[in-house]
Amino acid sequence: MNAIEIAEIAEPTLTDPVLIEGLPGVGHVGKLAAEHLVEELDGELVRRIYADEFPPQVTVDDEGVTSLTCAEFHAVTTEGDGSDLLVLTGDHQAATNDGHYRLTSAFLDVADSFDVAAAFALGGVPTGELVEEYTVLGAVTDAGLKEPLEEAGVEFRSDEPAGGIVGVSGLILGLGERRGLEATCLMGETSGYLVDPKSAQAVLEVLQATLDFEVDFGSLEDRADEMEEVVGKIQEMQAQQQGIPDEELRYIG
Amino acid sequence: MNAIEIAEIAEPTLTDPVLIEGLPGVGHVGKLAAEHLVEELDGELVRRIYADEFPPQVTVDDEGVTSLTCAEFHAVTTEGDGSDLLVLTGDHQAATNDGHYRLTSAFLDVADSFDVAAAFALGGVPTGELVEEYTVLGAVTDAGLKEPLEEAGVEFRSDEPAGGIVGVSGLILGLGERRGLEATCLMGETSGYLVDPKSAQAVLEVLQATLDFEVDFGSLEDRADEMEEVVGKIQEMQAQQQGIPDEELRYIG
Amino acid sequence: MNAIEIAEIAEPTLTDPVLIEGLPGVGHVGKLAAEHLVEELDGELVRRIYADEFPPQVTVDDEGVTSLTCAEFHAVTTEGDGSDLLVLTGDHQAATNDGHYRLTSAFLDVADSFDVAAAFALGGVPTGELVEEYTVLGAVTDAGLKEPLEEAGVEFRSDEPAGGIVGVSGLILGLGERRGLEATCLMGETSGYLVDPKSAQAVLEVLQATLDFEVDFGSLEDRADEMEEVVGKIQEMQAQQQGIPDEELRYIG
Amino acid sequence: MNAIEIAEIAEPTLTDPVLIEGLPGVGHVGKLAAEHLVEELDGELVRRIYADEFPPQVTVDDEGVTSLTCAEFHAVTTEGDGSDLLVLTGDHQAATNDGHYRLTSAFLDVADSFDVAAAFALGGVPTGELVEEYTVLGAVTDAGLKEPLEEAGVEFRSDEPAGGIVGVSGLILGLGERRGLEATCLMGETSGYLVDPKSAQAVLEVLQATLDFEVDFGSLEDRADEMEEVVGKIQEMQAQQQGIPDEELRYIG
Repeated sequence: MNAIEIAEIAEPTLTDPVLIEGLPGVGHVGKLAAEHLVEELDGELVRRIYADEFPPQVTVDDEGVTSLTCAEFHAVTTEGDGSDLLVLTGDHQAATNDGHYRLTSAFLDVADSFDVAAAFALGGVPTGELVEEYTVLGAVTDAGLKEPLEEAGVEFRSDEPAGGIVGVSGLILGLGERRGLEATCLMGETSGYLVDPKSAQAVLEVLQATLDFEVDFGSLEDRADEMEEVVGKIQEMQAQQQGIPDEELRYIG
Repeated sequence: MNAIEIAEIAEPTLTDPVLIEGLPGVGHVGKLAAEHLVEELDGELVRRIYADEFPPQVTVDDEGVTSLTCAEFHAVTTEGDGSDLLVLTGDHQAATNDGHYRLTSAFLDVADSFDVAAAFALGGVPTGELVEEYTVLGAVTDAGLKEPLEEAGVEFRSDEPAGGIVGVSGLILGLGERRGLEATCLMGETSGYLVDPKSAQAVLEVLQATLDFEVDFGSLEDRADEMEEVVGKIQEMQAQQQGIPDEELRYIG
Repeated sequence: MNAIEIAEIAEPTLTDPVLIEGLPGVGHVGKLAAEHLVEELDGELVRRIYADEFPPQVTVDDEGVTSLTCAEFHAVTTEGDGSDLLVLTGDHQAATNDGHYRLTSAFLDVADSFDVAAAFALGGVPTGELVEEYTVLGAVTDAGLKEPLEEAGVEFRSDEPAGGIVGVSGLILGLGERRGLEATCLMGETSGYLVDPKSAQAVLEVLQATLDFEVDFGSLEDRADEMEEVVGKIQEMQAQQQGIPDEELRYIG
Repeated sequence: MNAIEIAEIAEPTLTDPVLIEGLPGVGHVGKLAAEHLVEELDGELVRRIYADEFPPQVTVDDEGVTSLTCAEFHAVTTEGDGSDLLVLTGDHQAATNDGHYRLTSAFLDVADSFDVAAAFALGGVPTGELVEEYTVLGAVTDAGLKEPLEEAGVEFRSDEPAGGIVGVSGLILGLGERRGLEATCLMGETSGYLVDPKSAQAVLEVLQATLDFEVDFGSLEDRADEMEEVVGKIQEMQAQQQGIPDEELRYIG
């Protein structure tokens, strides 16, 4: 195998496609959001990307059949006049610095082959505490991209996130800009401790408004409810250990 | 030296050869099983694979003579009409992600040069507790491979092992499938704490039934007896520390 | 992206340019000194160096606009007959041994393209205690370079620093010498625990005297005052924890 | 810089040269032995090997002049009819598995360029306790090499050292054998806790007898005396902590 191999599965014609990236990261916000788009909008698998940067691993499905670890591009055709979507998902980031650069370059090569001119890297930004209002932070490769995003409720804060944007999301912007791509990072605020479907929904609502498409959030809301139950049980267990009476828990959960 | 070097030792003619891989892993199940085949069925050394992914190391034999760390392929001619075997053994996996990919590609190149069309990756799957019945789990690159394995007692469980299959075994399936190889992973259940000859025997019994050859298990049973003695002594020591009287140990060991 | 990419931003004509390197290190002495030169002497950005050795990261500015991690060369034109300066700054060293070699080679390629014949690597040397007098230690690729430096107050001590000089600074000398470059390392003594603008000033004073240019130290002195306040507060907090009365603190701070 | 660069310093004519390797390792036995040969027998520097596997580092000498980290080959002309020596010394092993392979290959290229047909890798083998009699263990690429070594007092023990021989010494044998080199590893027994000049002397005495040259051990014996003083002081300090009266120490030291 070469260091990176791109398997071409389908060649649909896309209208003004926009790259949407959602790989694992803080709160799995980006991954949840991107996978939700693929599932709800009947994405078509168009590319698999195999890379020796990924773990040497196969997954096993419910039939006992294996699949080599890879990242996937799905084409999503939206209704109306808006852009179609080219959605990048997967279970892994790269394992090394230079691997991140090589992998993101390959991802951008695929985007180029579909004539993508704009990209949205989706992710989470950790707040360290439970989030009440799901603000979405933004960062862009060009100040001219900010206005429509601010209209959709995205906040741009000076020098935030403080540590910059790392991993594939960061390089979609950094390397993308060097290729002439208009790239935006949308980061949903999230505690950083839990998988966060609500933060993913907040990010998708911005994307909906900006790119003019519609997606149903029922299944994300179900996952959010499940997560709330989990959080509730954890709080109950902690309270019992600390001897807090049951009635008071209602005010915490 | 190149990154990987393949030394050609012998060129026997093999009938419908099947690749059998058994490198170090959980309970050393795969390694024990593969080495047992080579020893009992008089395998002929056909290839040595040197790789800069392996530790920079020579081993020293009982005469004080050194050998450079390598993986080895032995050809095993079986009696009857069944497939001959091409058995891959060694003392090391790769040290890095990309090393696993490069090394397994080289292993598959060797298999290709012998016109191998099917592969069995042997290994263990950890249960975390002492195993009473030695079940063998399976995973396959194609659902059509399952029936004869299920007849031989192999269990296929939905999404198991949960973490997928990693290392050379995983890539024999993952990269093998991309080359058109029919590949199966046989995983003997094992505690995960000890070298486990009984689990290796369970895996080999499945292989025997599937590939229609016979192998004597005397030496593996001897090793299993030795391991049981070791386990017995450990339990005795633990019991003495905890003050359990000797008679009761009979029911534990 | 290639492993290292050099973006050419401007091509000013420089008079006998001297390479000045100041990347992150002990007390950030070199980085503070080099950045001070660029700011005070109106350096012109001439090159950006992108490298897959750097973290996969973009920084976000006060407008929410991102920039891919890189190292930068600024051209600084000095008044009078002295040499012009080619100043290398950045936020990162390399992440691996071979990355340091490849990165420094690229830096020296840029220096070569500007016909640089001499280099000064700036850094700090840790003393492990608060520094009263800011001595500057020197090391050179050729003993003939020492005299003017000693006249400017630089100390050369036998076999110091004991661990040699590591990172890009070390290789500017080590690889530079192999290209025929006259290279000097100037190391300001610093505690090693804090960012140290005073040590940076001591290093720049040597550079001023040696290369015959002038720079204002006002902003560095301001940063030194800020650091002293920080140190003062830390000492106060420690004293309160240990129950030392306030009056005595005046003699410590 | 290339990954590995060989600087040619001198081209003396050597008679039947034998490669002697002594890089850092257990008890620094090999390094002490090899450096002693170069110093006592007036070795001539013939090659410097620079490698991006080495730390990015320059050392600073007693004049403040820097040198890029490297390994060195010295030519040693012996008196009488015996072989001349090509002695490899340095301050570093490689930092990665594949680095060890690439580096040792480069070392063997240099040996080939001097028509070396035999090699001795020098090192220490840890015993875990203070050594009274300095036995030298051997390992060879070919059983035919053992007889003259056994006559010189070298012991060959079945499967020892248990973990094999690692690092450059191991690969001098492993990769050397694949090039047709007759290679021997001489390992002086040493506690493993301290730099051990006595073990280095034991190794050199075997080398003297085997290769028919003579070297004075005065300076090594001086270093051994210094080390004994250090050991004595450590034992004294430990005894004081444990309250052992001074008289009894005479029997320990």
